[in-house]
Amino acid sequence: MKSRITVGMIGLGTVGCGVAKVLLGNASLIAKRVGVPIELVRIADLDITTDRGLSFPDGTLTTDAQSVLEDADIDIVVELIGGYDPAKRFILKALENGQSVVTANKALLAVHGEEIFHAATSAGVDLGFEASVGGGIPIIKALTEGLVANAVTSMFGIMNGTSNYILTKMTEDGKGFEEVLQRARDEGYAEADPTFDVEGVDAAHKLAILVNLAFGTTVNIKDIHTEGISRLSTIDLEFAREFGYTIKLLSIAKYLDHEIEARVHPTLVPSTSPMAQVGGVYNAIHVVGDAVGDVVLYGQGAGSLATASAVVSDIVDIARSRLKNIAGRVPVASYQWTHRAPIRLRPIEEISSMYYLRFMVVDEPGVLSQIASTLGEKNISISSVLQKGRQQGQTVPLVIMTHRSSERSVQAAIQAITRMPFVSESPMLLRIEGAES
Amino acid sequence: MKSRITVGMIGLGTVGCGVAKVLLGNASLIAKRVGVPIELVRIADLDITTDRGLSFPDGTLTTDAQSVLEDADIDIVVELIGGYDPAKRFILKALENGQSVVTANKALLAVHGEEIFHAATSAGVDLGFEASVGGGIPIIKALTEGLVANAVTSMFGIMNGTSNYILTKMTEDGKGFEEVLQRARDEGYAEADPTFDVEGVDAAHKLAILVNLAFGTTVNIKDIHTEGISRLSTIDLEFAREFGYTIKLLSIAKYLDHEIEARVHPTLVPSTSPMAQVGGVYNAIHVVGDAVGDVVLYGQGAGSLATASAVVSDIVDIARSRLKNIAGRVPVASYQWTHRAPIRLRPIEEISSMYYLRFMVVDEPGVLSQIASTLGEKNISISSVLQKGRQQGQTVPLVIMTHRSSERSVQAAIQAITRMPFVSESPMLLRIEGAES
Repeated sequence: MKSRITVGMIGLGTVGCGVAKVLLGNASLIAKRVGVPIELVRIADLDITTDRGLSFPDGTLTTDAQSVLEDADIDIVVELIGGYDPAKRFILKALENGQSVVTANKALLAVHGEEIFHAATSAGVDLGFEASVGGGIPIIKALTEGLVANAVTSMFGIMNGTSNYILTKMTEDGKGFEEVLQRARDEGYAEADPTFDVEGVDAAHKLAILVNLAFGTTVNIKDIHTEGISRLSTIDLEFAREFGYTIKLLSIAKYLDHEIEARVHPTLVPSTSPMAQVGGVYNAIHVVGDAVGDVVLYGQGAGSLATASAVVSDIVDIARSRLKNIAGRVPVASYQWTHRAPIRLRPIEEISSMYYLRFMVVDEPGVLSQIASTLGEKNISISSVLQKGRQQGQTVPLVIMTHRSSERSVQAAIQAITRMPFVSESPMLLRIEGAES
Repeated sequence: MKSRITVGMIGLGTVGCGVAKVLLGNASLIAKRVGVPIELVRIADLDITTDRGLSFPDGTLTTDAQSVLEDADIDIVVELIGGYDPAKRFILKALENGQSVVTANKALLAVHGEEIFHAATSAGVDLGFEASVGGGIPIIKALTEGLVANAVTSMFGIMNGTSNYILTKMTEDGKGFEEVLQRARDEGYAEADPTFDVEGVDAAHKLAILVNLAFGTTVNIKDIHTEGISRLSTIDLEFAREFGYTIKLLSIAKYLDHEIEARVHPTLVPSTSPMAQVGGVYNAIHVVGDAVGDVVLYGQGAGSLATASAVVSDIVDIARSRLKNIAGRVPVASYQWTHRAPIRLRPIEEISSMYYLRFMVVDEPGVLSQIASTLGEKNISISSVLQKGRQQGQTVPLVIMTHRSSERSVQAAIQAITRMPFVSESPMLLRIEGAES
């Protein structure tokens, strides 16, 4: 048996530093669990001069990523630079060299997963990506192993910590999106360019990875209907609260009639539901399996050490297999490669949901009846109506909650209503999950 | 590579039927994930005549457990008869024969785990017991693999569905323990003899297993301080609520100064905490790791199909290793056998906690001052006091909440107070977790 497992890391940023800290700090504990030491023998980063408060043996740090990829003595390559290129080239090169790979790169896997998974499968080496979804939450292992007995019927969750932090603050403090975003930036919870986080792109990337694993199919990220939180206004959070709901940015996947629904959008969830309680930078993922029923996993969705926990669990997983001289024990994409198959992704127009609709209307007699009648014509049944602050002749918000209706009908009704003379600005449409229809 | 994996099951009760249903119903899905079919080739049960709504090929059912254990063509033996004997003999026999074993038998593993884990390690075969804790929740896999990078600093959770169901109903309906227990029996949520469930024994069994895995040590089940819920009165649930707490039967383990605290008792948790929201037969397990921080896993703690989900995940795990001709990839008790070590289990007298103390006292001047002064002498600091319903000269409840104090001091103070002439009946002592001290 090998007397140690060697790890080379590319990228010594926030997560990279966390991985180094965990591998060094818990080295003895990890060796007791694995049987041999796991040694971080080389770290490549463009910046090897900044003091990160970590000390490594001479020769560990390098600016040359190739020296990690070309070293046949390195068992596991950990890619933590993020982005598409050169991350993808590095990973494919490592796989080709027979090195196992661990990555936290959700954007890369969501967009180029098919190619990378195929490369790992063909090369007969392992690829770990637990850290790509849910930070420290072991959701990839749950889907591919712990819940392997189940046909997954649905999954939904809060998969982006930054947007959840912003929504939580908007809800608690009644402040607008821009103001809270600025504060999140100041506190280090949002990046300078927060587009991926606040527009739902990052949450869609993670959903694409989970759908791939749960259903054994590749989704095109462009086919996932994605809406972010930037257009939300505090009055919607407030109205939702009055109806007993909290607004969360949910990633949702459902398996229905041999098709998949996959979408990311701000969603009203009952304020008493576990999902509504998930605050700040925490993530929670709810999986429904045909045998297990409801399972929820909750934890820190980001952060240096929490994400490192996931990266190191992948390293240990691969180390344990390397020590037995095997690879591919769990197929990289959860299903055996030849058993993965295309499944139709249902366009958003074909879903059905309950809806929260907010119209800005001139407060005058007959408005509600005209809107209600248009909804009725489209077969959309209203469950409640709320109109705040009567100001004859002024513009006021009118909120309508619907029973389960078809998205296509709702969109058509909204178009018709938007053309009515008493409607100002675009209506707000939000979907509701987790409530009785 | 083997063209199939064969499973023999001993015990066709509630969980056994669930396992058969999942293996048969999801056979094609599981084969796509594993690569070969997993076939349930023999089932031993003392009763093979009752119609369970399941059909098996001729020759599958037998009353002879030995025919499962002695069949060299059976790769994996699933033990689902529960209890200590003959379950233990069957498991040891299977391990000796080189058959891998899957069991849901928490009582057996909590009491004889050391012997059984050693037998599996010596025989070089795998032993799966995911279903022994938390029903369908993949907590064993989380501790041994998903969170493997972490030193666990604490774990606590609701690990017994029956007692949680009873406590939830007592809290919601304000009904007493005996009345709710009877209803739980009628509804099938409690067994005819519910002692193990309501007295905390089952929760202690599960905690012993988790402590073993998290800390690499064997606990003697007798050393786990265990209190059940039968002595709880509805007034304590009500007082707790007034202070902002909900009472749950928690299994608690902490790693402090190279020692372990492990205890099971009714516990006040903040009503706003995730643990307080866990209702009915659901379980939730909160793990704190030094890297990952807080992780919570939530799901059905019992039930035929949920538990079967865990059993079948073990079967798949072992099948995947068998197909690679390996075993022992993950050590059966999480740590390499030679790296497990004794750790002192701290007796309950040595812990510190916040406390809820309820005294039944004669309502007369000077009572509170005498009690408060006794607590003060023992260095116990009071955070709040509640006395309901003044009835001069009558017996009334007096509730005192303390800041963090030593258990030894609190017990001594209670003994002294109990001897005071105005105190009737034994005081109620409950511990508080998850609040600021």
